[in-house]
Amino acid sequence: MDVELIASYLPSALQLADLIGVLFFAVSGALLAARRRFDVVGSLLLASLAGLGGGVVRDVILNDGVPNAFAQPIYLVPVVIAVLAVYLRAVQPDRLRRTLLVFDAAGLALFCVTGTQIALEAGAHPASAALLGTTTGVVGGLLRDVVANQVPDLFDPRGVYAVPALFGAALVAALDSLGWYSTWSGLTIVVLVFTTRLLALKFRWRVPG
Amino acid sequence: MDVELIASYLPSALQLADLIGVLFFAVSGALLAARRRFDVVGSLLLASLAGLGGGVVRDVILNDGVPNAFAQPIYLVPVVIAVLAVYLRAVQPDRLRRTLLVFDAAGLALFCVTGTQIALEAGAHPASAALLGTTTGVVGGLLRDVVANQVPDLFDPRGVYAVPALFGAALVAALDSLGWYSTWSGLTIVVLVFTTRLLALKFRWRVPG
Amino acid sequence: MDVELIASYLPSALQLADLIGVLFFAVSGALLAARRRFDVVGSLLLASLAGLGGGVVRDVILNDGVPNAFAQPIYLVPVVIAVLAVYLRAVQPDRLRRTLLVFDAAGLALFCVTGTQIALEAGAHPASAALLGTTTGVVGGLLRDVVANQVPDLFDPRGVYAVPALFGAALVAALDSLGWYSTWSGLTIVVLVFTTRLLALKFRWRVPG
Repeated sequence: MDVELIASYLPSALQLADLIGVLFFAVSGALLAARRRFDVVGSLLLASLAGLGGGVVRDVILNDGVPNAFAQPIYLVPVVIAVLAVYLRAVQPDRLRRTLLVFDAAGLALFCVTGTQIALEAGAHPASAALLGTTTGVVGGLLRDVVANQVPDLFDPRGVYAVPALFGAALVAALDSLGWYSTWSGLTIVVLVFTTRLLALKFRWRVPG
Repeated sequence: MDVELIASYLPSALQLADLIGVLFFAVSGALLAARRRFDVVGSLLLASLAGLGGGVVRDVILNDGVPNAFAQPIYLVPVVIAVLAVYLRAVQPDRLRRTLLVFDAAGLALFCVTGTQIALEAGAHPASAALLGTTTGVVGGLLRDVVANQVPDLFDPRGVYAVPALFGAALVAALDSLGWYSTWSGLTIVVLVFTTRLLALKFRWRVPG
Repeated sequence: MDVELIASYLPSALQLADLIGVLFFAVSGALLAARRRFDVVGSLLLASLAGLGGGVVRDVILNDGVPNAFAQPIYLVPVVIAVLAVYLRAVQPDRLRRTLLVFDAAGLALFCVTGTQIALEAGAHPASAALLGTTTGVVGGLLRDVVANQVPDLFDPRGVYAVPALFGAALVAALDSLGWYSTWSGLTIVVLVFTTRLLALKFRWRVPG
C-alpha cells in the first residue's frame, strides 16, 4: 500500500476543518429553508449560500484564483449531506430556531479560524487576515438571512455574535505572527469561540449600545 | 465592402445570446420596478442589477479580468432598451407578475447556457463551469428580488426554478466535454430550459420537500 | 525634520478624500443601527458595510489586487470614529432620518468622484470608470439598507439619488480624458453632487416614471 499516494488525495487538516465548517453552515441554511417551507431545491440553494458564501467572498477578496467552492467540487459534498440530513430528519427541526443557532455557532467558530489561516497562507498581513477571517465567519449567515428576507442574526442584540469571531480570528493571526500557531491551538480557539457564542446565547449576553 | 472587417465589429453568437439574456432579465427588473412604483432611475438601477448582476458575479468568481459588463459598454444597451420598453408600455405591465416571470424564464434559459460556455472558455473544469453557469442564471433574479425586499422567486415552491437551469448548464458542460457541443445544441438547450420553466410555472410543478 | 519622510506616511489627497467618504457613509450606517436598536457591535458591522462596501465592490470588479479596505488597516479608522461619534451622541440621533440622509449624501458625493479616479488610475476606460464610480457611490448605502431589511433609499422616488452621482462620475471621467482634471475641479464636483442631492431631498425633486 502506498500510504503517501493515498494521503495525497486526502484533504489537509485545514481543508477538513473548512469542509466541516461548510457542513455546519449548510445545515443552518437547510434548517432555515425548512422553517420557511422552501422545497428541497430551495433548501439546496440556501444551504449552498450559507455554507459556501463566506469562503467565496473571502477568496474573491484575496483575489487569488477561482474560489475553492467553485474550483474544488468536493465542497459540494457537505452541502448535499446537510440538505439530506435535514430532509430525512436526521437533524430534528422540532426546535428549529435553537438547533439552527447551534449549527451556525459551530460554523462561525470553524470559519473564523480557517478563514484567517487561509488568508495568512495567501500572504495577507496579519491584521487583514484577522479581518478576512471574521468576514468569512459572518458572511455566510448574513447572506442566508438577507436572502430569506429577515434581519440577520448577526444584528440580534441578544447574544454577541461577531465579537467571539473577531477575537478568535485575531488570536489566530497573533499566534501565527509569533510562530506559536499549531493545529492544536487552532482547535482550542475553535472550541473557545463556539463555547463563548453558546454561552452568550444562553445567558443573552448583551453589549452596551 | 470588407465583410470581415464589419464582422470583426459584430458580437459573436455567444455574446449576442448573452446580450439577449441581459435584455430579458433587465425587462424583469424594470417590470418589478414598475410594480414597486420606483421612478425611471430606480428602474434603470434594478434593470442593471437584474440584467448584469449574474454575469458580473460569474466574471468576478472566474477572476479573469474586469467583468464584461464594466469593460464593454455595449452591455448597457440592452438595459437601456429594456427600461425604455417598459417605460413606453411596449411591454404591458397589466399582467405584470406573469409577464415578469416569462422574461425571467427567458433570461434564465439563456444565461445558464452562456454562463457555462463563458466559464468553459475561461478554462474552468466542466463541473465548475456547470455550477458557474447555474449561478449566472439565478444570481441576477436573486439580487433583483433581494434589493426590492422580497423573498426571491428562486425559493417559491410553486414551479421549479433552479432545476432546469442546473440541468441545462450540466448538459452544456457534458456535451462540450464530449466534443459534441455546437451553437445548435446550445439553442436547443435554451429552448428546453425555457419550456420546462414555463410548464413548471403553468402547472405549478412542485419538488418534494 | 525630514518633511518628505513624514509626507510619505501621510495619505494622498485622493486617499484622504476616500477616507472621509468612508467616514460619512460609516456614520450613516451607525445611525441606521441606532434607529434599529442594534448594539455597538451591530453598529460597527453596519458602519463597515456602509463605509467600506462600495470600495470593496469597486476593487473586486477592478480585479487589481486585494481591496484597499482589507489591505490597508487605516480604512478601519474612520469606521471606528463614526461608531464612537454616534455612540457618544456627537452626532445627534434626534432627527435621525434627516441626519442619516445628509451624511449619506456627503459619502455619495465623495465616492462617485474618488471611485471614478481610482478606476481611471487602475487603467479603466473612461466610460467604465464613470460606471464604477457611480457603483462605488451607491453600493455602500444599498448594502446598508438591504442588510437592515428595508427598501434602499436609492429607490425612494422622493429626491433623486443616483442621477447626481452618475453625473459627477461622468464629469470626472470626461475632464480627465480632456486632461483638465485637477484636485480643485474634483472638489467642485463633490460640492456640486452634494448640493444637488440635498436640494433634491429638500424639494422632493422627482424623476418622471
